[in-house]
Amino acid sequence: MTVSVAELGRRARVAAADLAVRTRANKDAALLAMAEALEANAGSIVTANADDVARARSAGTSEAIIDRLRLDEARVGAMADGLRQVAGLPDPVGEVVRGYALPNGLQVSQRRVPFGVVGIIYEARPNVTADAAGLALKSGNAVLLRGSSSAAASNAAIVDVLARAVADAGLPVDAVQLVRGGGHDAVKQLMRARGLVDVLIPRGGAGLIRSVVEESTVPVIETGVGNCHVYVDADADLARALEIVLNAKVQRPSVCNAAETLLVHADVADAFLPGALAALREHGVTVHGDERVQGYRDDVVPATDDDWAQEYLSLDLAVAVVDSLDDAVSHIRRWGSGHTEAIVTDSLAASRRFTATTDSAAVMVNASTRFTDGEQLGFGAEIGISTQKLHARGPMGLPELTTTTYVVTGDGHVRS
Amino acid sequence: MTVSVAELGRRARVAAADLAVRTRANKDAALLAMAEALEANAGSIVTANADDVARARSAGTSEAIIDRLRLDEARVGAMADGLRQVAGLPDPVGEVVRGYALPNGLQVSQRRVPFGVVGIIYEARPNVTADAAGLALKSGNAVLLRGSSSAAASNAAIVDVLARAVADAGLPVDAVQLVRGGGHDAVKQLMRARGLVDVLIPRGGAGLIRSVVEESTVPVIETGVGNCHVYVDADADLARALEIVLNAKVQRPSVCNAAETLLVHADVADAFLPGALAALREHGVTVHGDERVQGYRDDVVPATDDDWAQEYLSLDLAVAVVDSLDDAVSHIRRWGSGHTEAIVTDSLAASRRFTATTDSAAVMVNASTRFTDGEQLGFGAEIGISTQKLHARGPMGLPELTTTTYVVTGDGHVRS
Repeated sequence: MTVSVAELGRRARVAAADLAVRTRANKDAALLAMAEALEANAGSIVTANADDVARARSAGTSEAIIDRLRLDEARVGAMADGLRQVAGLPDPVGEVVRGYALPNGLQVSQRRVPFGVVGIIYEARPNVTADAAGLALKSGNAVLLRGSSSAAASNAAIVDVLARAVADAGLPVDAVQLVRGGGHDAVKQLMRARGLVDVLIPRGGAGLIRSVVEESTVPVIETGVGNCHVYVDADADLARALEIVLNAKVQRPSVCNAAETLLVHADVADAFLPGALAALREHGVTVHGDERVQGYRDDVVPATDDDWAQEYLSLDLAVAVVDSLDDAVSHIRRWGSGHTEAIVTDSLAASRRFTATTDSAAVMVNASTRFTDGEQLGFGAEIGISTQKLHARGPMGLPELTTTTYVVTGDGHVRS
Repeated sequence: MTVSVAELGRRARVAAADLAVRTRANKDAALLAMAEALEANAGSIVTANADDVARARSAGTSEAIIDRLRLDEARVGAMADGLRQVAGLPDPVGEVVRGYALPNGLQVSQRRVPFGVVGIIYEARPNVTADAAGLALKSGNAVLLRGSSSAAASNAAIVDVLARAVADAGLPVDAVQLVRGGGHDAVKQLMRARGLVDVLIPRGGAGLIRSVVEESTVPVIETGVGNCHVYVDADADLARALEIVLNAKVQRPSVCNAAETLLVHADVADAFLPGALAALREHGVTVHGDERVQGYRDDVVPATDDDWAQEYLSLDLAVAVVDSLDDAVSHIRRWGSGHTEAIVTDSLAASRRFTATTDSAAVMVNASTRFTDGEQLGFGAEIGISTQKLHARGPMGLPELTTTTYVVTGDGHVRS
């Protein structure tokens, strides 16, 4: 029995009105109950997941993707721990962002309130189901979850457990709902549910995100694509530069905050590149270089425009020599995705100019691009990394799942 | 000679990169130069405007709309004064929204930066051209303006004057550009210019806003529609309530923050409504009432669901009696547009419940709905009133025309 997205949305709106006035104590109790319920029902969740895994295997899915899909007791336990962590975070709702008195005595207060209903469209990993549900609930929002069909059985089992725990804790059962079945048509309905869904956050590959951005009439927060750059300035400490480049590229190449392009100032190219290219090779990195870079080693693959534009998510790195900081910035503005750029420099002037002119969600000075992450920046949890400029930019924590309202209090004030 | 929107967008992006690093002093000098240039060229602007007015008149346009279109020296002077006011406002760019040190010594600073390129699609009044240009420039953004074809000559004359002044002040001439001609196709190109335009703000009637929201792939800030409510609580000071109702309805009925519906608690209906309905009638207001309201006077027009949903923008008011505060909130949640709602009450509990459960951009306690306005709330200027929840909600001033970037500074920090 499938329920229409519109019907789910209506139920979510009713739940959201209730959630919006719940205290932090109410919400934290529900989060802890959700965590406990996951652990208590780990067996049935793992069983449901086995169906998804079997289906994926018979469809010839790669082992790498099957590994992302697979749940065991330990992974269910990690989901529960994530919920407990969210319970420990401060409640963003009710925070006064700005407040002041006007000359006429009106008291103005801009307060954080929940969005209402948040839609999340995501791929593969079923742990996103619990993460997203927890962050939405803590920020006072009802959530409509739409996972990939490959994880349908796992997601259904997880949401059933979570919704029951939410209800047992005295919060509305419709606070956490899964959009089940219906294929792309259901996704389309979710993207067109303007008035029912307040914001839609796609999490997944570039194709998914593009289609949501193109088709949605619900406001979207775009996440994800990271073509990140490291620029080694003329005034860089070169030992430090090498450490940062290696960390940004090889520590975890499959994630959006890994580096994809290295730009080296011409003045330090001779001193830096021979050693750096050798070290990258030792770490298994294939370098795609411009002509000047090709001059340093035989194993450099000639780079094309595709290389400057690409998010490899693999042990590949595009490398170019630039003649100035401004050329580095021009390269980044032309080819980058606005996610994260790093400069390695000891020059204050260079760092000021790079941070002022690079138009990205995050700019690292003498630090690895890998720090663009909610957990690393101390947010405690992260719903995604926004690469758009509207509403949220960079890692999104709990406050980014809220909007604000102006409360204006007077004694019968009227306009003249 | 029409230039494609894509070409305008590319020029705007180049201008935006330059504008983003200009100081407040640079920008204020340009704003003052723009103001002076408007006054110096008032004659040619008024002459161009006369063409628009003649065209509108021969097309049979109503005198009310022609009056909104018409410019004279005084109105051009008011546009110049508006720019001078914006020069006097603080620069939002560079403001540190949050800043802290992490346990590992990384220094995190979240700073306001310009969006880049802002698109504004608007109707009728040519003064919006100068207002929007001034606010965009002050916040460091390049702007693409698209006015209505009825004001084409006026807008072209104004933008020519402004762009020349901007260039004379040493800022990029492409900071202020007008999308000329091209009919709906040009508007469509603007709405699809993702990657060139960072945000699109439609200003005008409900039809314009709906079409931008539906068709745009560029992130949109929805503005405008206001079906505002005044709720007179059981604990209201009734004299104060009458003053607020009259002010909210009749002081300027044609604007989005005027009241369209009055809800009265049943306990005070007998005491409040006979006098209030008589006073509204004296002010020329037609009341559309539910059955209980109809019982108080013969001249009450029976209200239908259309009345609860409508933004009259005229001397009409829908009036209903409700049995509780929660019923008032339910009515507002069902029929409202999320713009502004007011409660008149002396009860702290009632004011807390109303402000917590009404899901609108602004909630007034013992004050007229007419205060939802950037000028009134002390923002100095306003680019519009957002009725969506993403990015900005309520009146939008200069900070709402910016996004943020994270600057993270270390001494060679890498992730382990």
